[in-house]
Amino acid sequence: MTQDDWSGRRVLVTGGAGFLGANLCHTLAARGARVVALDGFLFGGGANPANLAGSGVELVRGDIREIDLRPLCEGAEVIFNLAAQTSHMGGQRDPLADIAVNAVAQVRLINAAREAAPDAVVVHASTRQFYGRPLRLPVDESHPVAPPDANGVSKFAGEQYWMLENRVHHRPVVALRLTNCYGPRLRIRDARQTFLGIWIRAVLEGRPFEVWGGAQLRDLTYVDDVTEAFILAALRPGCHGRIFNIGGSAPISLHDLAEKLVRVAAEHPNLPTAHFTTREFPADRASIDIGSYHADDSAFRACAGWAPRIELDEGLARSLEWFRTRFADYL
Amino acid sequence: MTQDDWSGRRVLVTGGAGFLGANLCHTLAARGARVVALDGFLFGGGANPANLAGSGVELVRGDIREIDLRPLCEGAEVIFNLAAQTSHMGGQRDPLADIAVNAVAQVRLINAAREAAPDAVVVHASTRQFYGRPLRLPVDESHPVAPPDANGVSKFAGEQYWMLENRVHHRPVVALRLTNCYGPRLRIRDARQTFLGIWIRAVLEGRPFEVWGGAQLRDLTYVDDVTEAFILAALRPGCHGRIFNIGGSAPISLHDLAEKLVRVAAEHPNLPTAHFTTREFPADRASIDIGSYHADDSAFRACAGWAPRIELDEGLARSLEWFRTRFADYL
Repeated sequence: MTQDDWSGRRVLVTGGAGFLGANLCHTLAARGARVVALDGFLFGGGANPANLAGSGVELVRGDIREIDLRPLCEGAEVIFNLAAQTSHMGGQRDPLADIAVNAVAQVRLINAAREAAPDAVVVHASTRQFYGRPLRLPVDESHPVAPPDANGVSKFAGEQYWMLENRVHHRPVVALRLTNCYGPRLRIRDARQTFLGIWIRAVLEGRPFEVWGGAQLRDLTYVDDVTEAFILAALRPGCHGRIFNIGGSAPISLHDLAEKLVRVAAEHPNLPTAHFTTREFPADRASIDIGSYHADDSAFRACAGWAPRIELDEGLARSLEWFRTRFADYL
Repeated sequence: MTQDDWSGRRVLVTGGAGFLGANLCHTLAARGARVVALDGFLFGGGANPANLAGSGVELVRGDIREIDLRPLCEGAEVIFNLAAQTSHMGGQRDPLADIAVNAVAQVRLINAAREAAPDAVVVHASTRQFYGRPLRLPVDESHPVAPPDANGVSKFAGEQYWMLENRVHHRPVVALRLTNCYGPRLRIRDARQTFLGIWIRAVLEGRPFEVWGGAQLRDLTYVDDVTEAFILAALRPGCHGRIFNIGGSAPISLHDLAEKLVRVAAEHPNLPTAHFTTREFPADRASIDIGSYHADDSAFRACAGWAPRIELDEGLARSLEWFRTRFADYL
C-alpha cells in the first residue's frame, strides 16, 4: 500500500482516543479507512471520549496490558501504535505501571500482531524524551540515548522491541520520535500532556499561566503535521525499518513562546487578555529536566517528503479557538 | 565504606547462586562479610545449588519478581545485583519473562531498597550486549546503544533504572557492562551462558565442540577478575554514579580461542584429546549476532585501579581442572 487511498482499508489505532491518536483517527476515517480505535482511558492520560465524537470510528475500550489483542489486529493493514503512558512525572511516580504499558504491553501487541496481522505495517509513536539532555543541537537520530526518567527508559524499550520485530521478523515498522505536539484534542486539564495544555487552559480561563524557567528551547509540532507524518510513514516503504525524529516549527524559547501565546490570544476577538508569570524550574523536576531540545528531522523529510505546514502562530490560534468552543469537554 | 574490610558487613547478592554471583559470594564470605544470596533458580539460568557449597552464605530461594525484597535489603551496606535472565535466545523466545526479570523486577528492587536500605551502595551487573553490532572497536561506554535482541532491550532498561536512582535519588550506584565471562561455576550444561560453557563440557566428555563462525573477536574475563571488579566498584566512591565497561584478556577470535582450549586441554595429564569442528553461524541466530566485540575498559581501570590478572591460558586451565573434579554437579 503506497497510495494515499484509504477507502475500505482496515486500520488499528492504539491509544485512539488520545490526543494524537484521535486526530489520526478523524483523518483516516475522513479518507475512507475502516478505523478501530483501542483505548484504555488510563487515569491521567490523554484519552477523552469527546476526542472521537463525530468521527465514525469504532472505539474499543480496553487496556492494552490485558485485553486480547488478536481480534483487534485481525485484518489490519496498518497499525498506528500510539498507546502509551506519556507523563514524565507519572513515570517517576509509578514506574511499574509505566513500563507495563510502554514496554511489556508492546511485547503483547507484537506477539498478537505476529499471529493475527503478520503483514501489517506498524507506525510506532516514539519520543525524543530518551535522548535526555542533548549533547548537541539540533538532535539527530544518532544522538546517544540517555533516558532522563523512567518514562524515557520504558519508551526506548518499547521502540526497540518494535525495531527488533523489523530486523528479526521483517515486519515493516517505522518509529517516529516525536517532540512536543500541540493542537486540538490535547489534554489541557493539567500539565500531564506538555506544558502547553495547561497554558491554553489558563488563557481560556483568564488566569495567568506559569512559565517554568523560560530559556529552554523547544520545537513544537502542530497535530495535523503529526497526523500527516504518521500517514506518510505508513505509505512510504523506503521509510520502513527506520527510526526518525519529527520536529516542527523553528526552535523557540519557552519565554518567547509564552509571549507569542499572549499575542495570539490578544488578536482573538473573544478571549480575555492573557498574561503569564515566570518561576524557577521546580527542584523536584530539575533532576529529570532535559534543558533545550530541537530535532534534526531532515532524514524523515528526505525519506517521506514530509514537512510541517502549520506555523506556530497559526497553530496556537487554531488551538485556542478549538478549545474555546469545546472547553467544557476538556476540563 | 572504602576499605576492603568486609568483617561483619551485611551484603545482599541477587542472583547469588548463579555463576558470577556465587563466585562473588564465596570471596565476600571469605573476607568476613555476612552474605545473603537471593536466587530464584530460573529454569535455564545459571543458578546451581552446588555453586554455594561450602561458602557459609545464607541462601534465600525466591523469585525477584514476586518475593518481598524489603527484608532482604534490610541492613545491607552493599547490594551486588546480578539477578537476571541472561540468555539471548531465551529472551527472544520469551521476551515477557525476560523483561519481567531484567527490568520490571529491577524497579521492585529499587523501590524495596529505597525503603529498607536507603544508603546501600549498589553494584549492578550490566552487559555489553546492548551495544549491538559494534560500529567501532574497541567499544567504549559512549558507543551507541542498539540492542540486537530482546535481552539487550531489557538489560538496558534495567541498567538505566538503576542509574536514574543515582541521578534522581542520589543512591551510590555503579553499573558494570560485562563481556563474556568464564571460569568455575559457569553453566556448562548447554550454551545458555556463553558458548564457552558447552565447549568445556564437550572437552571434558571427549567430544568435539562446535565453533560457530570463528572469525568473531571476543575478550573474555576470568571470573576472579570479575569478582574483583565488583568489589572495587563498591569500595571506590569515585566510581559511583558511573557506568563502566569491563573487559578482560586480549581480543581473540573464536577460532583461535578454540585452538587455545585444545592446547590447554592437551597439557592436562588427565583429559582426553580435545578437538572441534567449525560450522557456519546458524541462520536463526544471525539476525541477533553482534559480530566482533572487545571492550575499552580504560575508564574503569583508571577509576578503580582494576586490571584483569588471569591470562586466558591460565583461566582455561583452571576452568577445565575445576569442572573435571566436580563434573557431575554441572550436568
